[in-house]
Amino acid sequence: MGTLTRFSVQPLSAMTRRLAAVAMGSAEPDLVIGGARVLSTYSERILPDREVWIAGGRIAAVKPAGSHKGSAKRYDAKGGIIAPGLVDPHIHIESSMVTACAYAEAALLNGTTTIFCDSHEIGNVMDVAGVEAMLEDAREAPLSIFLTVPSTVPATSPQLETAGGDLTPDKIGALFDKWPEAVALGEKMDFVQVAMGDERSHAILAAALQRGRPVSGHVYGREFVSAYAASGVTDTHEAIDREIADDMLEAGIWLFLRGGPPTTPWHSLPQAIRTITELGASHKRIAVCTDDRDADDLLLFGLDWVVREAIKAGMSPEKAWSMGSLHGATRFGAEGEIGGLGGGRRADLVLLDDAMKPVNTWYGGELVVEGGKITPLLDRELSTRYRYPEAAYHTVKLPKELKLTPELPTEPVTVNAIRTELPGITLGHEKIRLEPANDWQSHFDRHGLCFVTVVERHGKSDGNVAHGLLSNFALKRGAVASSVGHDSHNIIIAGVNEADMQVALRAIQDTQGGVCVVVDGKVTAMVELPIAGLLSDKRVTEVAEEMKLLKKEWEAAGCSIPYMGFNLIPLSVIPEIRITDKGLVLVPQMEIAPLFEDA
Amino acid sequence: MGTLTRFSVQPLSAMTRRLAAVAMGSAEPDLVIGGARVLSTYSERILPDREVWIAGGRIAAVKPAGSHKGSAKRYDAKGGIIAPGLVDPHIHIESSMVTACAYAEAALLNGTTTIFCDSHEIGNVMDVAGVEAMLEDAREAPLSIFLTVPSTVPATSPQLETAGGDLTPDKIGALFDKWPEAVALGEKMDFVQVAMGDERSHAILAAALQRGRPVSGHVYGREFVSAYAASGVTDTHEAIDREIADDMLEAGIWLFLRGGPPTTPWHSLPQAIRTITELGASHKRIAVCTDDRDADDLLLFGLDWVVREAIKAGMSPEKAWSMGSLHGATRFGAEGEIGGLGGGRRADLVLLDDAMKPVNTWYGGELVVEGGKITPLLDRELSTRYRYPEAAYHTVKLPKELKLTPELPTEPVTVNAIRTELPGITLGHEKIRLEPANDWQSHFDRHGLCFVTVVERHGKSDGNVAHGLLSNFALKRGAVASSVGHDSHNIIIAGVNEADMQVALRAIQDTQGGVCVVVDGKVTAMVELPIAGLLSDKRVTEVAEEMKLLKKEWEAAGCSIPYMGFNLIPLSVIPEIRITDKGLVLVPQMEIAPLFEDA
Repeated sequence: MGTLTRFSVQPLSAMTRRLAAVAMGSAEPDLVIGGARVLSTYSERILPDREVWIAGGRIAAVKPAGSHKGSAKRYDAKGGIIAPGLVDPHIHIESSMVTACAYAEAALLNGTTTIFCDSHEIGNVMDVAGVEAMLEDAREAPLSIFLTVPSTVPATSPQLETAGGDLTPDKIGALFDKWPEAVALGEKMDFVQVAMGDERSHAILAAALQRGRPVSGHVYGREFVSAYAASGVTDTHEAIDREIADDMLEAGIWLFLRGGPPTTPWHSLPQAIRTITELGASHKRIAVCTDDRDADDLLLFGLDWVVREAIKAGMSPEKAWSMGSLHGATRFGAEGEIGGLGGGRRADLVLLDDAMKPVNTWYGGELVVEGGKITPLLDRELSTRYRYPEAAYHTVKLPKELKLTPELPTEPVTVNAIRTELPGITLGHEKIRLEPANDWQSHFDRHGLCFVTVVERHGKSDGNVAHGLLSNFALKRGAVASSVGHDSHNIIIAGVNEADMQVALRAIQDTQGGVCVVVDGKVTAMVELPIAGLLSDKRVTEVAEEMKLLKKEWEAAGCSIPYMGFNLIPLSVIPEIRITDKGLVLVPQMEIAPLFEDA
Repeated sequence: MGTLTRFSVQPLSAMTRRLAAVAMGSAEPDLVIGGARVLSTYSERILPDREVWIAGGRIAAVKPAGSHKGSAKRYDAKGGIIAPGLVDPHIHIESSMVTACAYAEAALLNGTTTIFCDSHEIGNVMDVAGVEAMLEDAREAPLSIFLTVPSTVPATSPQLETAGGDLTPDKIGALFDKWPEAVALGEKMDFVQVAMGDERSHAILAAALQRGRPVSGHVYGREFVSAYAASGVTDTHEAIDREIADDMLEAGIWLFLRGGPPTTPWHSLPQAIRTITELGASHKRIAVCTDDRDADDLLLFGLDWVVREAIKAGMSPEKAWSMGSLHGATRFGAEGEIGGLGGGRRADLVLLDDAMKPVNTWYGGELVVEGGKITPLLDRELSTRYRYPEAAYHTVKLPKELKLTPELPTEPVTVNAIRTELPGITLGHEKIRLEPANDWQSHFDRHGLCFVTVVERHGKSDGNVAHGLLSNFALKRGAVASSVGHDSHNIIIAGVNEADMQVALRAIQDTQGGVCVVVDGKVTAMVELPIAGLLSDKRVTEVAEEMKLLKKEWEAAGCSIPYMGFNLIPLSVIPEIRITDKGLVLVPQMEIAPLFEDA
């Protein structure tokens, strides 16, 4: 087990006398980083000729260059910029398909030293036990990880889908009471229910508000913003244009600008930031976040990249870095500990080049990244890490036999098909008339269809299987499948024949989770996700490589939307039609529809 | 007992469904304030044509003008500016010599709806019991009052003075645990001890930090700022120039710019604000505060006046008002409740004219000030209020007989005199050679001297009395006296003869506290302070009138420094020489000096 964790640095209350002595020059620091410019997130200036005095993993003082005369260890920043480590105020670790400990490696490479994560995916699979296992994982990571308690598990109702988790107001309250790092309520994403006064949703809000914990949110639609704010939600991480961004700010909501990789539809930052650059709003209640990252994207498009996107959009480097560090810390009441280079703060630092790219990272005063590479110390620390409990490795519970494809209609029928469209978030409802045919393939050829099937995998039903048909998915042959079917994380399989779909399903069953591509009875690419069917237990660099291969095979198979869009097909809160283990869900009506209707 | 208090508005957790319904237009607000511009402390803009929807004392929504179509009660702002009520992040109620309930009247007239107060003066007299009585008082006030727990009681040590209170780390911890409104540690003013690592000081810091409570401070001297910040102090309210202001900001300390009335030496805002206007620092971690106010000044120079001083110094009205409201709220983690017009926040509002003067104030949605005058509702609410416990009315404990003047020297001696200088904060150490004379008066005439005597009044000694001589105080005749001798609040009397000094002392004994002027055996002006010897039990307007009369007589008596400077004469932490009940204290050395030395 590694020893470099959030707890390696003693609480400030135990260190004030030593730090004061170092700052007064009557005791030696452990480390002096000299030859630096310093980026102040407090005053939003870059200060020349400074040195940073560190003791016990905390900042004792930032002084004019040359102030220190003692024999302490020195590090020469060679004129680079020392800035506080980045603070990501909203992420889901599970999106990266790695453990918290593995996530830490990528975060530190990106100059991120603190994250506020919402582990609602593992909550959807394993309920409180999953959230708590990830908290244990987080406590052993070489990264400061705080929890925003999953608030919307399940995403809809037991009538519409079978989830593994059911986080009631009582369970959420108990998580707050047990885990001090549970600092806020996570993304209360059922914003329509919140605005409409749904009882359970408001009981969950109350569980946080009564404990003085702030509430994070996610809302679309200007018409809902006022009611959402009035319900106590005080941050959100998506604003698709400057007008709704403005509404959110004015409603008292902290705005996290989400930067998504250029290859995704999640990059709303360039639009939302116009509330500052065009509408003249102050940036003081605006931060940046990553939200979700594929493992491979995590290494390329971290929070540092999002900060640079903010600079590209017109912010000064000083302001943009503040939005990436101090502002998130302030939003969560942690600015006495992180987010700036003030006295007594954790020595979570980065050394930046003039392009604002992190070169070095110190975590709690320990050098963990140098010259853009992890140090031997961090490598050693990451070589053995938290192991999830055995139960987490057994979450794919299937009956012996399952039929994955529907019966071929013998009469003319109308199919309620799901039409996939790029980028893959919203799905269309397409009604297609099928005349009787000899086989499915001829329907597929004529109408651009393939099978889509959702299999309940929590062992909570008698083997629920729902059959559907995808239009425009363009799968050429074989099957693709995933145990990460949002948000209940049942297994979703698309395919052109039963046999390949069975191979995909069994591959996922054998590994107890994963995403795979199957061609002609063979698995051509797979990211194994044995922990809760969501997470790999490998290091992030390995998972990133596996992910790249998977994406290559995914594309080769012809799939018209990326795997993340595919994973969202069961998410029955986004228009127009989705499929869960209970069947096809018409989203506006929140009703189950049959696959076939009379023609 | 009044019914309009902080608790008149239900917690947000109990109101989210109603507020959401109002915001969605499916339930009626209680009040719509229309015809308004709105000052947004979030975006720092003034927004035209808005209306504010209020329900249950909270803001349900701010909407475009004309949005509300229902039958709710309306108030026409006639084009004025609606802004959040001011938040004073650092004050001492006792300075105004009124109760918390009485203070509320003045605060509301100034557009202040929340204060963070440090009741260290009553703590110095009555220990925990005094702090708790004031908390009870605060809970019954029509004002939101939070406590920053007194941290430095006594101000020095029992060797140097006799105080009524001794707030140990354990007692401070217990106050945090018992009173949820105890949100921070108050002004840790012994900054030298903090920087030097004094054990008790750091144990007190730990009592707050271990509980996750921030620490307020007060520091002079650039050489101490780093160590002070490293000790966990995260705000301060005095920066005498732009350079130290800058140092504080960079050390991670929130800066409260103190605006003092023009007649006092406390007006450091114009200097400190130059860190923004000249050195380019962001204003986002800078607030404004009042700190101390005489009762009469309180009505003239409230926090609204300080905000206008910030505007005069170059800030935009939007930024300056944010510094007067949101920033203090954010510093203390209360921005979800106060400091802006966001959804769900308390409806603590002001209506401003274009000169940024408060015209109306709403507290928790109730109109308490209209057209610059308190409403009949507030008047009624204030007519009966909290009564302090009987013990608080009996804190002047004196022996029967006390000699208030020293023996006339019969040999040549050198006097260690205290030289008063305007403005009255620092005092000079003047050595004066006295040849034997027939009476004190001839010494006084020759050297510009008068008596100064401190009488222990907590009943903790055998009637400690210390005699001293003031130089340059210019008292023409009679005596002046006060039971508010900082910080231990023993009785301080200056006079030219024993008889008038005895009259002054007995006047204070009879009323159990007060400040008075005595001429020819008669009390010519007195502010009675029967509660802890510090507070009047009258309404603020009455105390203000009494204070004006006192100041007039004070001046007529010839006193060269104002009564507040006089009250500071026993404060043995400020250079150079002070007098406590234990004798003359040489401050740099922290030693007792004799009144007379061999010539």
